[in-house]
Amino acid sequence: MTAAIDVDLAGRRIRVGLDVGGTKIDAVAVGPEGEILARLRRPTGWGEDAVVVSVVEAVDALAAEGGFTRSAIESVGVGIPGLVDADTGRVLHAVNLGVESLDLAGLAGRQLGIPVRVENDVKAAALGAAVLRGIEGSMAYLNLGTGVAAGIVVDGTIWRGARGTAGEVGHLSVDPNGRLCGCGQRGCIETFCGGGALARAWDRPGALPVRDILDSADAGDEHAMALRADLFHGGAAAVRALVLSADVERVIIGGGLTSLGDRLHAGIRAALRSGAEASAFMRSLHLDERIELLPAGSPAAAFGAAVVGATTPTKEIVSHG
Amino acid sequence: MTAAIDVDLAGRRIRVGLDVGGTKIDAVAVGPEGEILARLRRPTGWGEDAVVVSVVEAVDALAAEGGFTRSAIESVGVGIPGLVDADTGRVLHAVNLGVESLDLAGLAGRQLGIPVRVENDVKAAALGAAVLRGIEGSMAYLNLGTGVAAGIVVDGTIWRGARGTAGEVGHLSVDPNGRLCGCGQRGCIETFCGGGALARAWDRPGALPVRDILDSADAGDEHAMALRADLFHGGAAAVRALVLSADVERVIIGGGLTSLGDRLHAGIRAALRSGAEASAFMRSLHLDERIELLPAGSPAAAFGAAVVGATTPTKEIVSHG
Repeated sequence: MTAAIDVDLAGRRIRVGLDVGGTKIDAVAVGPEGEILARLRRPTGWGEDAVVVSVVEAVDALAAEGGFTRSAIESVGVGIPGLVDADTGRVLHAVNLGVESLDLAGLAGRQLGIPVRVENDVKAAALGAAVLRGIEGSMAYLNLGTGVAAGIVVDGTIWRGARGTAGEVGHLSVDPNGRLCGCGQRGCIETFCGGGALARAWDRPGALPVRDILDSADAGDEHAMALRADLFHGGAAAVRALVLSADVERVIIGGGLTSLGDRLHAGIRAALRSGAEASAFMRSLHLDERIELLPAGSPAAAFGAAVVGATTPTKEIVSHG
Repeated sequence: MTAAIDVDLAGRRIRVGLDVGGTKIDAVAVGPEGEILARLRRPTGWGEDAVVVSVVEAVDALAAEGGFTRSAIESVGVGIPGLVDADTGRVLHAVNLGVESLDLAGLAGRQLGIPVRVENDVKAAALGAAVLRGIEGSMAYLNLGTGVAAGIVVDGTIWRGARGTAGEVGHLSVDPNGRLCGCGQRGCIETFCGGGALARAWDRPGALPVRDILDSADAGDEHAMALRADLFHGGAAAVRALVLSADVERVIIGGGLTSLGDRLHAGIRAALRSGAEASAFMRSLHLDERIELLPAGSPAAAFGAAVVGATTPTKEIVSHG
C-alpha cells in the first residue's frame, strides 16, 4: 500500500479505525507503517447507548482478533453518518442509527481510555481513499450507496466547507421533471444513482435490487434498461458537478454499488463520454479518464477513520455570518 | 471600504488593476490604504498586439487621470478572460479578444517597466469582491454576464482547482430537455441565466435584451415571463451548485446583469425559497439569505486585479496525473 500523504504513524503504536454504518461496523487496526494488521465486521446497535457499546466492543474484538491489548492502541478514529462536529466528536441527526445528539468521542474515549476522534463517514472515507490511492492533489470520493454523497480532499486535508454541505452533490437537481427525491426536491442526482431510489423505482423483490436491474437490463427488460441508464447518467452528473465546481483532479467512486464492479465503472465512463460528445469543452476535461472505482469491500472508510484518529484537530477558520 | 482580508499595500505606492473585457478595460489605481485613487474605462483592442497596447495605454491614461507617474506604480494586475497561467502571466484561448497565446505579463511588464501579474477575470473579480465585502471565510463570486461562471475564494486565496475549471457551474446541465448551450450540451445553467442565451431566446431588437425581458414580463408577455423564470431559476441553480459542492458560506453575484439591480436579486432569492419549499434539507441551508448582489458598476473586478498584482505568486502543488 502506498501512503503518499504522510500519515505519521511511524514510531507509534496501533491506530484503530471504525466505519460505523446503519447495520454494521467495519473495523481495522493500522500498524506503524500504515499496514492493516487486523480487520473485522460486527453489527451496529441501534440508539445512542448501543452505538457507544458497539464502538467499544468493536475495538476490543479487533484487539482480540489482532492479538494486541487496548494499551497498544494509540488512537481510535470513528467515521459515522450524520452531522459530526469533528472538533468535539459530537454526532447529530444520525437517523439510521437512532442518534439525535451523542458525545461519541467523550463517552467512548472514557470507556476505552484511548483518545477517540469522530468524523462524518463519507469525509473519513474520502481521506482513506486519498491515502490508499496515493493522491496528493485534489480528489473527491463519490459514495454511491443507498444515498449519494461526496467528500473532497485537497493536499491530504478534508475540505469541510462553511456549513457541512461540501460534496452534497446527491441533492443537486439535474432534471426538473425527474423523480421525487426523499429530500423533497425533484430530479436530484440521488434519484438517478442512489441505491435506495433505484430500488424504489424498480419495486420488485430481491436482495440486491441494483444488481437485478443490471441483470434484467442485460436481458432486455425495458424498465431495467431505463433505470440502468439513469444509474450511469446520475453517476456521470455527480462527477461533472464535482469537477465543474471544486475542480478536483480525480473522482474515486466507493460505496455499496461498487459491488457491481466493472459494469458500474464502464457504464459511468460511457455516460461521461456520451455526455461530452457534442461539447468540445467537456471533451477537453477527459472526465472518463479521471474516475476510478474502489474494489468492492475496500477498507477505505475504516482506514480513513484510523487516519482521522491519528490527526491533530485544527480549528477551522470559517465565518458563519 | 473595509479590507478585512489583509492586503499589504501599506507603506508601498500605487497598485494598478485592470479588468480587460471584450470591449472595454476598467482600470483602477489603488492607494496604500486600499482606497481607489482613480478609475477610468477605455476600449480594448482586438488581437494579441492590440491587447498589449491597450493595457499599456490604460495604465498611462490612469496615471494621467490620477496625477501620478509610472514610477509611482508598484505593480500592475490584469484580469482577463480565457485560460490564464497565473504563474507565468500567459493567456490562452481568449477568443473574444482575438488572443490565442499571449505572454501578457512579459510583454506589458517590459514596456511599462513595472511587474505585471495576470489572472483569469472571474477569479480576479472573486478576490476583489471578497476583499471589498470583507469576507474572511469562503465565498463564491457568481458572474452573470453574457456567459455564466464563478470564482471561489477561501480565506483570502483564490481556489484554483486542479485544471482551471473550479467554479465553471455555467456548464452544469440542470435540464436534459433544456435549450442547446454554446458549449454543445443541453440545459446548462448558462442557457437559463446567461445574458447571451437569454438574448438569443428572446430574439427581438434592443440594446439591453434582459432588461427588455423583465419589462415585457412585468407587462404580461408570456414568452418574457417564461424567460424571466428561467433567469431566476438558473441563478438559483448556480447558487445551489456552489453550496452543495464547495459549500461556500456566501455567494456574491456580479457581472453585467447586476444592472437589473433588485429585480435580479429579489427574483433569485424567491427562486431559492420556492425551490426549497418542499425540502427541509434545502430550507435548512437558508440559501436566500446567503446571496448578495454587487452594485452595478462595482469596481470589484479591477480592484481584484490590483490585489492580484500585489500578491506574490505561490506555485500550486497539484497532481496532474
